[in-house]
Amino acid sequence: MELLTPLLRPSAVNHCFSDAAVLQGMLDFEAALAQAQAEAGVIPRSAAETIARCCQSELLDAGAVAAAAAQAGNLAIPLVRQLTARVAEQDAQAARFVHWGATSQDAIDTGLVLQLRGALAQTDRQLTQLMTVLVQQIDRHGVTLMVGRTWMQQALPTTLGLKLAGTLDALLRYRQRLQQMLPRVLVLQFGGAAGTLNSLGTKGKAVSALLAQRLQLTEADTPWHSQRDRLLEVAGWYAGLAGTLGKLARDISLLCQTEIAEVAEPQAEGRGGSSTMPHKRNPVSCAVILAAAMRAPALVSGLYQAMLQEHERGLGGWHAEWESLPELMMLSAGALAASVPLIDGLQVFPARMADNLALTGGLILAEAVTMALGEQMGRQNAHRHIEQACQHAQAANLPLLAVLEQDEQVLKWLDRQQLAELLDPANALGSASVFIQQVLARAKAAHQSLFTTEEQS
Amino acid sequence: MELLTPLLRPSAVNHCFSDAAVLQGMLDFEAALAQAQAEAGVIPRSAAETIARCCQSELLDAGAVAAAAAQAGNLAIPLVRQLTARVAEQDAQAARFVHWGATSQDAIDTGLVLQLRGALAQTDRQLTQLMTVLVQQIDRHGVTLMVGRTWMQQALPTTLGLKLAGTLDALLRYRQRLQQMLPRVLVLQFGGAAGTLNSLGTKGKAVSALLAQRLQLTEADTPWHSQRDRLLEVAGWYAGLAGTLGKLARDISLLCQTEIAEVAEPQAEGRGGSSTMPHKRNPVSCAVILAAAMRAPALVSGLYQAMLQEHERGLGGWHAEWESLPELMMLSAGALAASVPLIDGLQVFPARMADNLALTGGLILAEAVTMALGEQMGRQNAHRHIEQACQHAQAANLPLLAVLEQDEQVLKWLDRQQLAELLDPANALGSASVFIQQVLARAKAAHQSLFTTEEQS
Amino acid sequence: MELLTPLLRPSAVNHCFSDAAVLQGMLDFEAALAQAQAEAGVIPRSAAETIARCCQSELLDAGAVAAAAAQAGNLAIPLVRQLTARVAEQDAQAARFVHWGATSQDAIDTGLVLQLRGALAQTDRQLTQLMTVLVQQIDRHGVTLMVGRTWMQQALPTTLGLKLAGTLDALLRYRQRLQQMLPRVLVLQFGGAAGTLNSLGTKGKAVSALLAQRLQLTEADTPWHSQRDRLLEVAGWYAGLAGTLGKLARDISLLCQTEIAEVAEPQAEGRGGSSTMPHKRNPVSCAVILAAAMRAPALVSGLYQAMLQEHERGLGGWHAEWESLPELMMLSAGALAASVPLIDGLQVFPARMADNLALTGGLILAEAVTMALGEQMGRQNAHRHIEQACQHAQAANLPLLAVLEQDEQVLKWLDRQQLAELLDPANALGSASVFIQQVLARAKAAHQSLFTTEEQS
Amino acid sequence: MELLTPLLRPSAVNHCFSDAAVLQGMLDFEAALAQAQAEAGVIPRSAAETIARCCQSELLDAGAVAAAAAQAGNLAIPLVRQLTARVAEQDAQAARFVHWGATSQDAIDTGLVLQLRGALAQTDRQLTQLMTVLVQQIDRHGVTLMVGRTWMQQALPTTLGLKLAGTLDALLRYRQRLQQMLPRVLVLQFGGAAGTLNSLGTKGKAVSALLAQRLQLTEADTPWHSQRDRLLEVAGWYAGLAGTLGKLARDISLLCQTEIAEVAEPQAEGRGGSSTMPHKRNPVSCAVILAAAMRAPALVSGLYQAMLQEHERGLGGWHAEWESLPELMMLSAGALAASVPLIDGLQVFPARMADNLALTGGLILAEAVTMALGEQMGRQNAHRHIEQACQHAQAANLPLLAVLEQDEQVLKWLDRQQLAELLDPANALGSASVFIQQVLARAKAAHQSLFTTEEQS
Repeated sequence: MELLTPLLRPSAVNHCFSDAAVLQGMLDFEAALAQAQAEAGVIPRSAAETIARCCQSELLDAGAVAAAAAQAGNLAIPLVRQLTARVAEQDAQAARFVHWGATSQDAIDTGLVLQLRGALAQTDRQLTQLMTVLVQQIDRHGVTLMVGRTWMQQALPTTLGLKLAGTLDALLRYRQRLQQMLPRVLVLQFGGAAGTLNSLGTKGKAVSALLAQRLQLTEADTPWHSQRDRLLEVAGWYAGLAGTLGKLARDISLLCQTEIAEVAEPQAEGRGGSSTMPHKRNPVSCAVILAAAMRAPALVSGLYQAMLQEHERGLGGWHAEWESLPELMMLSAGALAASVPLIDGLQVFPARMADNLALTGGLILAEAVTMALGEQMGRQNAHRHIEQACQHAQAANLPLLAVLEQDEQVLKWLDRQQLAELLDPANALGSASVFIQQVLARAKAAHQSLFTTEEQS
Repeated sequence: MELLTPLLRPSAVNHCFSDAAVLQGMLDFEAALAQAQAEAGVIPRSAAETIARCCQSELLDAGAVAAAAAQAGNLAIPLVRQLTARVAEQDAQAARFVHWGATSQDAIDTGLVLQLRGALAQTDRQLTQLMTVLVQQIDRHGVTLMVGRTWMQQALPTTLGLKLAGTLDALLRYRQRLQQMLPRVLVLQFGGAAGTLNSLGTKGKAVSALLAQRLQLTEADTPWHSQRDRLLEVAGWYAGLAGTLGKLARDISLLCQTEIAEVAEPQAEGRGGSSTMPHKRNPVSCAVILAAAMRAPALVSGLYQAMLQEHERGLGGWHAEWESLPELMMLSAGALAASVPLIDGLQVFPARMADNLALTGGLILAEAVTMALGEQMGRQNAHRHIEQACQHAQAANLPLLAVLEQDEQVLKWLDRQQLAELLDPANALGSASVFIQQVLARAKAAHQSLFTTEEQS
Repeated sequence: MELLTPLLRPSAVNHCFSDAAVLQGMLDFEAALAQAQAEAGVIPRSAAETIARCCQSELLDAGAVAAAAAQAGNLAIPLVRQLTARVAEQDAQAARFVHWGATSQDAIDTGLVLQLRGALAQTDRQLTQLMTVLVQQIDRHGVTLMVGRTWMQQALPTTLGLKLAGTLDALLRYRQRLQQMLPRVLVLQFGGAAGTLNSLGTKGKAVSALLAQRLQLTEADTPWHSQRDRLLEVAGWYAGLAGTLGKLARDISLLCQTEIAEVAEPQAEGRGGSSTMPHKRNPVSCAVILAAAMRAPALVSGLYQAMLQEHERGLGGWHAEWESLPELMMLSAGALAASVPLIDGLQVFPARMADNLALTGGLILAEAVTMALGEQMGRQNAHRHIEQACQHAQAANLPLLAVLEQDEQVLKWLDRQQLAELLDPANALGSASVFIQQVLARAKAAHQSLFTTEEQS
Repeated sequence: MELLTPLLRPSAVNHCFSDAAVLQGMLDFEAALAQAQAEAGVIPRSAAETIARCCQSELLDAGAVAAAAAQAGNLAIPLVRQLTARVAEQDAQAARFVHWGATSQDAIDTGLVLQLRGALAQTDRQLTQLMTVLVQQIDRHGVTLMVGRTWMQQALPTTLGLKLAGTLDALLRYRQRLQQMLPRVLVLQFGGAAGTLNSLGTKGKAVSALLAQRLQLTEADTPWHSQRDRLLEVAGWYAGLAGTLGKLARDISLLCQTEIAEVAEPQAEGRGGSSTMPHKRNPVSCAVILAAAMRAPALVSGLYQAMLQEHERGLGGWHAEWESLPELMMLSAGALAASVPLIDGLQVFPARMADNLALTGGLILAEAVTMALGEQMGRQNAHRHIEQACQHAQAANLPLLAVLEQDEQVLKWLDRQQLAELLDPANALGSASVFIQQVLARAKAAHQSLFTTEEQS
């Protein structure tokens, strides 16, 4: 199903998981294997060259690979068969050495790791982009007053900058985790039929080292055919990212509600129009991100389940990974891709924010008064007292200030001027700017992408 | 990603969810809508005819629909736009009446229901096929003795027929549930922009009734744009089916183990061969079914999560369904499709079953002796006594019979002949045949497919 | 962890899954087994009487059962051991016949089914209660105008009655499914060690029938020790219910937002107060229901995964069910219990609804004008024209009516009076009342609880 | 439900999540908060001392807290109320300063982090224990020959040491990830009502720093009330661990099968006995671990879903975490606890392993011959040729050697002696010992527990 790809998976990560990329990943393994074996003296150098030359996905009949996989049980078996035939057309001798000593899963897993590397590099770049536009919006809106909301109720003032800084703070953790994760997951899979590299005799280790070097992957201490924690670390990272972005999108979609209208998605021709309601502007980017954030947890749970792979190479669990991991990554990366223009072009309406801040007639600043009074009357007493004042203000539809400046209990401790200051949102931001500065400082240090330019191409 | 479809989703249900089928589902809605509205006097009959004539997915530019959906937020908006353009080429007047009074989700959801109907009919037929081959194998192997295993340990004798009857019994429940579910889920979605059919004024009900009739769907009492329980009933049914088939595949894969070897998957050229181990025959069908059974629970959980759709039509949750439900259904239907030849051509090795039955030297029949003794010595005492005898037999590597016929405690109650009979597996089948007959009787009654021939085409 | 039970699981279903209820479920099986076997002439009648008399959970040392289960692998083994000791204290002869011919799982699964019956009856009653209060609110608010919202944006008018009718409509389907499900799930588990009832020789079927009769359960055609679809049907039903209620709670929580304030949770002393913000009233019931709705999908997916139980009785999968199914049911039933007072005492603010309806200055009724114009200008043209008028109204901060009555294009087809009528929300309810009546009619027919009074006690 | 705790959650981590520990976690926060505020000059030092003295969970009425939480919506509100009452009994003045400037979630989340620290330390110690016994078994069984199995079929020889080394290799990654994760997750939550610490005016930062210092937690750059990625990193780690252990348990349970019998769970009085089958020894530890591994993926997916928490503090999502995260951690830690004695006392039967290695008459070593021949005939040719030889050996029930030494094609390249050597499992271990050494070397370096002795108490 490709119809929904542009809407639901709008990221360049898709290219890393195209059918061609799947085939090419395995072929890159086969090419490097032949070359490493030639270097180690296991197969003739000329054979390796011929093999490497044939390792191009365009030379394969992908449909035939797919059809044969239904019998063979995986893609590598028919791929190797086709590759061998291509090589044989050029050099019958060389054909003997295709896939020498490897098992299907060596090709499939290493191919996957190569795809993962591309996808992670692409995701890292997009993460940098999102952090960049977040920093810009935080700078811009560090003191843009808006109401903070808890339990989906107005609570106390905050700023748009602090709101976005929470997301940036989280993304910086994802960046750090990515950095720590890379050496664990960018590893070679090479174990042969049962994970002992038996068919290479005493040369297994040497070939493995050369192969890893060629592919610029780390060697694994043991083959990981049925130890899938590395893939789950990647999956968990993406699922978490989707959740963090989903939280952002949920907030934005709540702020976009007609009655709140504090922000809007960037406007574009034909974007978010309704087929029947001309006045509407649907938050399409939020929908895309939220959909990914709802699907990612399910996909990652399927991958956790699939970890119970039997013995040296498992049955079913391995198969269950093949589509689920790319799907999860493409959805999460799509959510990330959708977030960049959303944050970059987010329309912000400070006047509306101010209106909403004023909506409760000062009730949301009751805490400040409670605290000030609490120092005198005790926190629980002050809480009870102000709670009653608030109820009175609501019932009488009066601003809280109007009620409090009539309240003798209160006036014992606080005069009108003090009350007005306590009830001014601009005075009620506490440590907001400190928090923002802390995150921005960390963002500056982390700005650099993790991947070098070569890998980015 | 299509490379893995032949392996992981080998069922005709795929056709119901192709891109073309998605578009055609919506177009079938649009055509029927126009015709129903003509019949109700809402739009001109000639306009309806032109519209209906243009409702063919081949006339659309699917790529352009997909690309525009990324802006519009769903497929129906660009589809309606293209359809309107096609109609306008033939009759500018008629173009005014395309999608009259409907909302995108009416087209998308009803289109989905039409796809579901096709998929359910196809699944029902395949279910019948699986039940048919199961009945045949049960008939054949009603008294084929094999060891029953609990906690993955040999327990007591059973028969292959009873083992398969357990699956048949479950499938009969799925058939019954399907029958009960169909009237609930094969319903029209038609509510207009906010679920009130406002744009049709007083004619909403009349158009709705005619539209349902044309599409041979039931009318819903209220629009279900954000009430998704129907889809979850379908999803839960498929996820359950995948689980039941996964249990079957797990059992077969366990019986296929080299050391057990009581059954094998049907043999076929190139099927299940290993790229490196010429002697192996991998249980590919089991892998396919197991993979589906591991992925289905995850997919269904994502759909349950997506139920929390806001207000009259939701944000994100609806989007999260679009690919997940078809994916779940295609995987489960694929598992079903893979099960039919697996059961039909299952290789059964009764001699090996007999060998395995004998493996413990009668220990697995200890219960029969325990029960017989229990009548005399009390269940707990008999249990303890026979437990010791079993340990002795194991330690001395003797058949249990050899130990028991030396045991004076035992001989007080049972003579050698009685012991031998108690330890003969063929005498230890209890109610197995009764159970089998009960299921087979039910199977005969339920054999008929639920769908009539028209719907099967 | 019990601290959170009153908050997160506020339903009487909890009692069905207490430790005592778990033990009593198994004991009820053991008592009925002994009595059925006495009736079938398998064990002495006096033994059965003694056994049945001892089958009271208060007589057991639950802590010792729990501790011993850690060695034995399930609760039934130590329970049977303790029960046997209790019986032996009264009648050494009778002790021999405790648990005669049954396997642990027979006791555990049948005990579970007995618990399920109680829980389902309780849930059914609470479902009736919720439907009752829904019907009342729908009756009350059938014409209470409010804005319908799609994609979390204001769309078109609807009524509170129709909104709630959507939930009632779904609940009626759950009621129907419950009715159809009961005969499938309220079944005896009785198969003995490997599912053949071997230890009862030829009397298996007779004992099974008598046992089922005593427990008022249906006999299963085959033992279902490793066929768990029945439990998944129950689980799926509860997970779906949680989703449907979660949708309701999400809507209410959105309507409770300070800026929207169209409804509020029922007020009660100490309910939903904030520890720091005296003015706040947190929607606690919504939080409880939403939390259940987020956890249920995960729990049900674990149960689907656990279906792959090996051979005649599985390893691990069965164990994975034991806590997950009750947990799922208690959470969903808790959401149901929380919904009854929430709906019953829901505070509704029609004036606020009217304010919100007016918020866009008529933009949300643009569709009605579009439709009326569309008949003349074609749907796409009308859409484009009114879209521009809406943008103009928004930019100029004018009511749509003010803009349209200056628009010569529009005035060609519609006069001011017509425009005003088209823009009156009360004229824009389409088939809302028809839909409501359809659901209410069905609700009346289904009102009766499914369970008879005996089972309700 | 506590009946199943000893069986399903057999770890000391449980203590970290008892009701008392939950209350004490919050009280530790309240005590440290008062002390930090005294130090910062925000509240009187004597008040802080009184408050700190009252912060003992034994002084609270836990039942009343639980009951009141059902109204309040969380545990902290009634806890603070009770604490205030306790303090007031001693010093009415001090009571005013309880929970000063904090929000419920500050206490709940920081309390949770303190519980997490204890649980992680306990888990880390148990991880060290498991790695220790794994190292011992690997040392012992580095050259214990057994068959490697892929797709649940015999493949090629491997060693028990290498099999276990795969698990050790994965556990070393979990150790490394734990180390990297700790600074990210052991952080203070302190933001006040809306995440701005507004009620502390300009002293927020100073109090925060002192509070973090007292609790030996890191300060967060921004409050993370609705940014839950930290908790998900913990959850993902535990879910992964459960998966890795589940893989180990699945392998062991497969090896325990009656027909394979290469290992057995440690024997203990009353452990794994069947209620009806005296000869059986059920792999109870495997069942426990597998059950955890099936439930963990579901629980973690619920937590990922719950990440979408609204605005400054969310509704429902936060509630959904409260039981799910501890449950996940207790199950996974239980699996870990069950694994230590399982591996430590694992019974290994090398003779049986040798028998199973010989079962196919050398077929599983066909690859070695294929490779040797492949150098001469080409890989595909050799594969086809040996495949036929294997089929002939199977059909004729002959050892492969017997067939090959009659095969002129083969004898052209390999003599009988060479064939016998190629078919000797001891010669077919390839790089197994290299792989083992690599992991053992890494294990030595990582042996030290991450937590210092203080935290272990």
